[in-house]
Amino acid sequence: MIDLTLLGCGGGMPMPNRFLSALCISYKGRKILVDCGEGTQVSMRICNLGFKTIDVICISHIHGDHIVGLPGLLGTIGNSGRTDPLTIIGPIGITEAVKGLRVIANWLPYEINVIENPKDTVLACNDEIKIDTLEVEHSSPCIGYSFYLKRMAKFDVDRAIENGVPKQLWSKLQKTTEEIEFQGRIYTPDMIKGAERKGIKVSMITDTRPIDEIVPFIKDSDLFICEGTYGDDKDIEKAIKNKHMTFREAATLANKANVERLLLTHFSTAMDSPERHISNATAAFSNTIIGEDRLELHLSFKE
Amino acid sequence: MIDLTLLGCGGGMPMPNRFLSALCISYKGRKILVDCGEGTQVSMRICNLGFKTIDVICISHIHGDHIVGLPGLLGTIGNSGRTDPLTIIGPIGITEAVKGLRVIANWLPYEINVIENPKDTVLACNDEIKIDTLEVEHSSPCIGYSFYLKRMAKFDVDRAIENGVPKQLWSKLQKTTEEIEFQGRIYTPDMIKGAERKGIKVSMITDTRPIDEIVPFIKDSDLFICEGTYGDDKDIEKAIKNKHMTFREAATLANKANVERLLLTHFSTAMDSPERHISNATAAFSNTIIGEDRLELHLSFKE
Repeated sequence: MIDLTLLGCGGGMPMPNRFLSALCISYKGRKILVDCGEGTQVSMRICNLGFKTIDVICISHIHGDHIVGLPGLLGTIGNSGRTDPLTIIGPIGITEAVKGLRVIANWLPYEINVIENPKDTVLACNDEIKIDTLEVEHSSPCIGYSFYLKRMAKFDVDRAIENGVPKQLWSKLQKTTEEIEFQGRIYTPDMIKGAERKGIKVSMITDTRPIDEIVPFIKDSDLFICEGTYGDDKDIEKAIKNKHMTFREAATLANKANVERLLLTHFSTAMDSPERHISNATAAFSNTIIGEDRLELHLSFKE
Repeated sequence: MIDLTLLGCGGGMPMPNRFLSALCISYKGRKILVDCGEGTQVSMRICNLGFKTIDVICISHIHGDHIVGLPGLLGTIGNSGRTDPLTIIGPIGITEAVKGLRVIANWLPYEINVIENPKDTVLACNDEIKIDTLEVEHSSPCIGYSFYLKRMAKFDVDRAIENGVPKQLWSKLQKTTEEIEFQGRIYTPDMIKGAERKGIKVSMITDTRPIDEIVPFIKDSDLFICEGTYGDDKDIEKAIKNKHMTFREAATLANKANVERLLLTHFSTAMDSPERHISNATAAFSNTIIGEDRLELHLSFKE
């Protein structure tokens, strides 16, 4: 239902054997991109992910490894024939950064709408996916993202009959959130719907220290994508100094927030084999996956 | 003597199978980089070319495929421990472009000296390589580059004796361009030197139409690196419209300018197999090489 591609899993600098950390979320033919380092558009191309259908580009923060590829991608999106406006979300400073970078991408055949450090939910993918943000703690203003696809409550035939809803309104009430007046009486959607059902929640947190506010923000995510810049517990001092996390810290957040799965990304260039350190994560949260370039995951509603 | 690496050979957009056109010139441990598209630093890394020893970055023009990688590279050069100033040369607009791009690379541990559309020769690699520029004809201000390594004239023992130069001055006069006063008489370097010898000349022209001014500028190059965006002669209309060249046009310039070798680069993304069209180049200039990512060439003084 929601297709996710981890376009890269590296931090710091683009490397021959590792693309920079970025995520593509595809839903019903539309896309959300999270971060855009040098090479992100190449990784998208390898995966045959089209450029024309990107609704929103979410930038975590204005460090090169998360944004250098943006002006090139904007040009490539232009070459794809896009004319619909594009939204870019980012932390404080994103407006100035986009303005600066557009010195090399000044003419584009579509408008760009920049939302700086949003306080309200942003809608994407035909307004079906809600994007929320959280200010996190890095060496420059940085925001984490959560993406939520709502699930309609199931139609409950017993409830509809119990509430005396005429049959001809059943289908209409299922598709709307508004009340319907019919033969002098008001009918509301909840009269035919069963209990609320959980939608799909994906959260992505990079780059930051593991601050407490992250736990409620990522709570109950089906997939929590989190930076794990350092795999070795011994690198905790580096993690603190550089405002990053170890695998264990990321996994501890996953555990506290009761997420279903943790996907680690944004590995230090000094860490050749992140999988060697997986036990440091699984000790705190067992359902952990080590990111790989172009790893694909598919999330569906639970029965 | 001079080591050249064609870091990529593509134009327009970075592709999974082709890096963007860029050149690294290495001489006595120092480097000149020409163009810096998205991925150029990755290609440099694949070749184990270090970042700390780049003296000058030459940008042909301010289109994404030639400059998107610049802020990332500046950061990587910073991470390499460099503190010496770095020179960036480019066409009109380069100062503003570098300023704009530095919104994402604002703190660097070295100074940047930008030379916009230089009219005078710029020296690089311990002042041994002369860089000259030529304004060419593209859809935005664009400059071509030539690189010249001077060769010392050979020591001519007969001439030294003929001119009555004392033996103890022979070595000194060989190493200087200035006159030496000795026992009341003036000695000049030409008194001990034979005929001038040709140095090594490399020129790089991309992106442009094949204007007449290019011929004297690239004259007698040992290596002429030239854009050949289109291989097929039938694409001449596209070449004219997009201000590029066909293989045949590039080769005609090579022929007129009496260069020794032509290396084609900056291939259109639509051209999968540039080598299929080589006969269109060799018909005008036989000593033509089709560029490949990370093709290495080594140029030495001729005997």
